[in-house]
Amino acid sequence: METGNLIGYQYIKSEGKAFKAIDPSSGSELPGDFYPASLADADAALTLAEKAFAVYRNTDSKTKAAFLRSIAEEIMAIGDELIERAMSESGLPQARLQGERGRTTGQLNLFADLVEEGSWVDAVIDNALPDRQPAARPDIRKMLIPVGPVVVFGASNFPLAFSVAGGDTASALAAGCPVVVKAHPAHPGTSALVAEAIKKAAQKHNLPEGVFSILYDDGFAIGEALVKHPKTKIVTFTGSYKGGMALLKLAQQREAPIPVFAEMGSINPVILLPDALENRYAQIAEQYAASITLGAGQFCTNPGVLIAMKSDGLNKFKNALNEAIGKIGSSTMLAHGICKNYSQLSEEVLTEEGVSAIGRGNLNNDKTNQAQPLIAEVSASSFLVNPKLREEVFGPYSLLVVADYEVQLQQVVDALHGQLTASIVADEADLKKYSSLIQSITGIAGRVMLNNVPTGVEVVHAMQHGGPFPATSDSRFTSVGTGAIKRFVRPVSWQNWSNDLLPDELKDGNPLNIWRLVDNNWNKN
Amino acid sequence: METGNLIGYQYIKSEGKAFKAIDPSSGSELPGDFYPASLADADAALTLAEKAFAVYRNTDSKTKAAFLRSIAEEIMAIGDELIERAMSESGLPQARLQGERGRTTGQLNLFADLVEEGSWVDAVIDNALPDRQPAARPDIRKMLIPVGPVVVFGASNFPLAFSVAGGDTASALAAGCPVVVKAHPAHPGTSALVAEAIKKAAQKHNLPEGVFSILYDDGFAIGEALVKHPKTKIVTFTGSYKGGMALLKLAQQREAPIPVFAEMGSINPVILLPDALENRYAQIAEQYAASITLGAGQFCTNPGVLIAMKSDGLNKFKNALNEAIGKIGSSTMLAHGICKNYSQLSEEVLTEEGVSAIGRGNLNNDKTNQAQPLIAEVSASSFLVNPKLREEVFGPYSLLVVADYEVQLQQVVDALHGQLTASIVADEADLKKYSSLIQSITGIAGRVMLNNVPTGVEVVHAMQHGGPFPATSDSRFTSVGTGAIKRFVRPVSWQNWSNDLLPDELKDGNPLNIWRLVDNNWNKN
Repeated sequence: METGNLIGYQYIKSEGKAFKAIDPSSGSELPGDFYPASLADADAALTLAEKAFAVYRNTDSKTKAAFLRSIAEEIMAIGDELIERAMSESGLPQARLQGERGRTTGQLNLFADLVEEGSWVDAVIDNALPDRQPAARPDIRKMLIPVGPVVVFGASNFPLAFSVAGGDTASALAAGCPVVVKAHPAHPGTSALVAEAIKKAAQKHNLPEGVFSILYDDGFAIGEALVKHPKTKIVTFTGSYKGGMALLKLAQQREAPIPVFAEMGSINPVILLPDALENRYAQIAEQYAASITLGAGQFCTNPGVLIAMKSDGLNKFKNALNEAIGKIGSSTMLAHGICKNYSQLSEEVLTEEGVSAIGRGNLNNDKTNQAQPLIAEVSASSFLVNPKLREEVFGPYSLLVVADYEVQLQQVVDALHGQLTASIVADEADLKKYSSLIQSITGIAGRVMLNNVPTGVEVVHAMQHGGPFPATSDSRFTSVGTGAIKRFVRPVSWQNWSNDLLPDELKDGNPLNIWRLVDNNWNKN
Repeated sequence: METGNLIGYQYIKSEGKAFKAIDPSSGSELPGDFYPASLADADAALTLAEKAFAVYRNTDSKTKAAFLRSIAEEIMAIGDELIERAMSESGLPQARLQGERGRTTGQLNLFADLVEEGSWVDAVIDNALPDRQPAARPDIRKMLIPVGPVVVFGASNFPLAFSVAGGDTASALAAGCPVVVKAHPAHPGTSALVAEAIKKAAQKHNLPEGVFSILYDDGFAIGEALVKHPKTKIVTFTGSYKGGMALLKLAQQREAPIPVFAEMGSINPVILLPDALENRYAQIAEQYAASITLGAGQFCTNPGVLIAMKSDGLNKFKNALNEAIGKIGSSTMLAHGICKNYSQLSEEVLTEEGVSAIGRGNLNNDKTNQAQPLIAEVSASSFLVNPKLREEVFGPYSLLVVADYEVQLQQVVDALHGQLTASIVADEADLKKYSSLIQSITGIAGRVMLNNVPTGVEVVHAMQHGGPFPATSDSRFTSVGTGAIKRFVRPVSWQNWSNDLLPDELKDGNPLNIWRLVDNNWNKN
């Protein structure tokens, strides 16, 4: 395994104090020395990225698609070594990581298909009106173009799908933007294996050196330097509110501010309505116990708050949920810091006014960094006066908020911050009775579910993974699904250009055969 | 004329010190007392706007379209009074304001057509895959929804088309967002007349009170309060860099930050290539003299810098431009402060190292606040080392930057900030010889022209009016053309909802007959 900082096609020799990856399930060090990159390395990576951009922005779609597909192939070619290293570094089980690898290669192939098809550039053509009075109207044509070098921060909770060759990298490369990855220090070995796969794929297609680089750091200096660097045009990040806001502020203070697409956590409210609870309490309890504890609760879409009204059905649900959670064992968290944080926050919440534990999973003492599932309960009136209870506890935890009367349900929803998702669990009678409450959840979330769990984010065209602040820094964009490519582009209009000088996407006769809005008609003419 | 602050359907009684509009061509006061709104008024307007949003966001497209068309009709129904008041308040000539009124009503009708047609919501449907292994894929559907109350700052340079019922208001109302206008203090009477037209139109269609309000202030307090108010979700602004940045900072410092779409000025570079100058110097000089002085140079797309290489053709062009400018008289600027600023900056620039005047228009001493056209010249080497010369001088001014050799042309382009537009003036031989320079201009601007002047922004689907920072605060959006509606919306995904509970735009059978991406196929099925 090549563990060096990779700038373009060169692994460079670094100095200073090396760091190692830690197996969170045992606390022991894993093989491989990783060296924090220097500020000069950050500058070199971005200088090369900017140079590469001059070529890569004009690289044809077929080549870009082939590049993305080659990355997927090279990732598969690593074989078991990748899964094993990711297991050791993340504590996540084999099946999950195999599934995540499938999602990662699936994303790469999806973006390959998207750029190859080509209509994603939103081409719009308004032909000239030479006879318009009092003055002729010129020919105007618009499409999306890539913006420039993108800095991708690898996320800890998806060491493959939201990391080095994850959705951010795949969509940025698809858009025509070079990528500099800041590797997550919790899985540097996984990162290095995937980085080498991207390097091989770029070389195979003779792409300009600098289309991809990766830098390591177990501190904050390199991340900060990358965000502040004048050649960086866009930043993507998935992690904590604190981390995301720090990057956002750095980006806003630049001489030329740049967008930071930060996903910063969400408590993903679930409203459990009375008829559904009465009719299906056991099934709902099973479904949500599984969703809350999936992947040790380390999902941005983890249901962190359940909202319901006092009823017999709710009592039955609580018993069933308690029973279901009790059968679930603890699991290894991604890193010691995350586990420490979870243990602390999940205990602290129980010291808040009116909060009590109603269910716990089993603790496995054979392994380190274990997260014990916890369901707590609080009255709506206590919840409404305590802002602390609206904050995310990252891990297998959920807070059941119990309303005394119907109006309180709406009050609880209105008190929530912006969310990635909001879910309704309802039967026919609920849907009629609570229609206004149900409608209101689109106001606070990017994705709304009916009788479905929020965990499990499908990589499809219709996916919106991004909600109002503070769930993300920009609710108008998504980080999952084909829409994610729109984060790396901006529209440009060409006015009065001759046909041969226009990009192919905008030429008469539509040589790329893409969908375009021509004189206000959608067609492929 | 009703001159009061309008909150919903009520003109309210205000206290404090009234201000009056000033005729810039004479310096004399115009009839009508306008009272600065209070902080309580700002709160009342936004509270009503938020209430109205709960209804207006679900108002059907036909009603919204009819509302927009009624605003256009009511504006026309004001008749000559509107044109005369706008002339008195802005110093702009009758024909220009009649044209601008046509553009304003045209924009309202264009957005009416857009929402009535309906496809602008970008509906995407991915049908469920119940048999997928290892788990079924749920049904997921996405579309754009309005975000909430919008604060529109009226701009001084387009008292109709970028003011009370201008493009920002038209596109926000089309999107389903209520609007609170902060009237520009230079044209309060024009603002009041148009506000009454919007009020009448809203009442005619029984829209919820608060869908539109307007507040006056000759200071900064109300503008600040509106941006900081927690119920404000989006801000639009067209004006100076200083003003735009002040609003942007306020918005970023909020507990929940919000987008500010600020257009903050641009010097709109024009690259004049050698063959074109040699072959067409007289025609180009005429064309640019007109563009530079149009509307007293008070256009955001005014060509503020001309870039060319030393040549005989350039000498002939300079003489022709000098002659053309010399024939153009001064014109009244929009307000005393703007004129004072122009006089000062255009004189200051002549004191910079290496800058000299090469042409001036005639000064009309019969009227006050006259802007005298000025063309200055500087060498590329002096330009490259003096950042001050890259800044906008708002008025009928342009700086000719003369390069000694070809590489300097690219250096000058690379030294420029982000721009709304960039233009190339070129003949056949130039296009071949300078292809890399020509290609590079898409990197710095939102709209690129070939052999066309940048002034005259067409309101069409393919228009991009928005460029990289600092031209605008967000180059990914446009403030002119149908794309402007995208500033007021965000995507939401519905997962696993039954058909009757989905918005009409996403229902099976496509009852609204709009274009949708269904299972990755664009169609109207």
